[in-house]
Amino acid sequence: MTGRLIGVGVGPGDPGLLTLNAIDALKAADVVAYFAKAGNESNARAIVADHLNGAEELPLLYPVTTEIPKEHAGYRDAIRDFYDVSAAAVASHLDDGRTVAVLSEGDPLFYGSYMHIHVRLSDRYPTEVIAGVTGMSGCWSSVGAPMTQGDDVFTVLPATLPEYELERRFADANAAVVMKIGRHLAKVRRALDRAGRLDRAIYVERGTMANASVMKLTDKLDMRAPYFAIVLVPGWEGRA
Amino acid sequence: MTGRLIGVGVGPGDPGLLTLNAIDALKAADVVAYFAKAGNESNARAIVADHLNGAEELPLLYPVTTEIPKEHAGYRDAIRDFYDVSAAAVASHLDDGRTVAVLSEGDPLFYGSYMHIHVRLSDRYPTEVIAGVTGMSGCWSSVGAPMTQGDDVFTVLPATLPEYELERRFADANAAVVMKIGRHLAKVRRALDRAGRLDRAIYVERGTMANASVMKLTDKLDMRAPYFAIVLVPGWEGRA
Repeated sequence: MTGRLIGVGVGPGDPGLLTLNAIDALKAADVVAYFAKAGNESNARAIVADHLNGAEELPLLYPVTTEIPKEHAGYRDAIRDFYDVSAAAVASHLDDGRTVAVLSEGDPLFYGSYMHIHVRLSDRYPTEVIAGVTGMSGCWSSVGAPMTQGDDVFTVLPATLPEYELERRFADANAAVVMKIGRHLAKVRRALDRAGRLDRAIYVERGTMANASVMKLTDKLDMRAPYFAIVLVPGWEGRA
Repeated sequence: MTGRLIGVGVGPGDPGLLTLNAIDALKAADVVAYFAKAGNESNARAIVADHLNGAEELPLLYPVTTEIPKEHAGYRDAIRDFYDVSAAAVASHLDDGRTVAVLSEGDPLFYGSYMHIHVRLSDRYPTEVIAGVTGMSGCWSSVGAPMTQGDDVFTVLPATLPEYELERRFADANAAVVMKIGRHLAKVRRALDRAGRLDRAIYVERGTMANASVMKLTDKLDMRAPYFAIVLVPGWEGRA
């Protein structure tokens, strides 16, 4: 009898946005695994800290972050090896009959690291995924920004896209979210301006955390932004 | 002293996907309001039924559904009047100092009816929005379909779009969700086929409900679908 793999969405940061199913999964788990950068606390673990009942913990520590450029083949190989080794560590507990909860910030199958474990193990072990509140939902809810309604087209864009691609896609959707802003803020701002959407754009740093920073993008005077900052472009403007 | 307006996301259907904040809001509410079709039980109310503590209930009953074609000006006027009257009913409780929780299936500011109350009242009353798990997250989690990763472009499309627009947008995104399938299933299927995405498309009926129906779209032999069925087009295909 192998154990059960559970991908647990823990939401965007506020522990109050944990679901009842997530809390039940933590209670049922023999092992709680989570990703983190070496030397940093895991955000996902911090979110569930009050619900850990002495289960064994399995930190999965990223080997590389900023040392190698992301476009470099060495980065991709190192990351792929890391996910292989991480999946093997989880599988070893499953083979011993233990239930392993793998934490995922936000929603596990939506831009989550858990997915790398899921695609390696879900064919071999009984697997369950517990949906979570996404980071973007946490952001627009804390801002109170009506995002989409009716037949709106909505899109999520990485800030890494070329400027002309961002402009085209802003103009092509009713509402948008731009993720991983980091050093791309000036480019994103120019693309929004040319697409006629700058006035409604909202800049959000540290989403649902206690120290969140939120402002109209036009009110942000510097172009410094952390990697995980996002920009919301609500579709609902002047409608009722 | 006016009361507080709380938009409460109750998730996609499984009561286990309620958040702790949603449950706290229900405890704090003097009045619990929810939308429903006249003559039907409210789905949102059913999801929270175990957490209602004797608060006054305020059902907001849609006056029209299928009697008038949606494109008709009469439909839009009737719906707008309905939201005006609903907001006034909520405001009347707020004016009396009562805290009103307005339930929203999924996430309140993401295609939710709550938004029509929010845009009418949030400038006048202290307002809080509690993010919820979206219907689409509930669907891809129950299916275990890895949706998006890394720098993927993700888009949400209404099935009402013309066929050529659907085809163009499927080809233009790494991953997509098509909502409100209903009588548009044959058209959506043709557009997916021409965009080369039909093989990975998943058809989902009644998402996270106990009687959910899930299949590869190519395995669905008839073209009958309820209005709230959705199609998932996962972006993660053959990657690791």
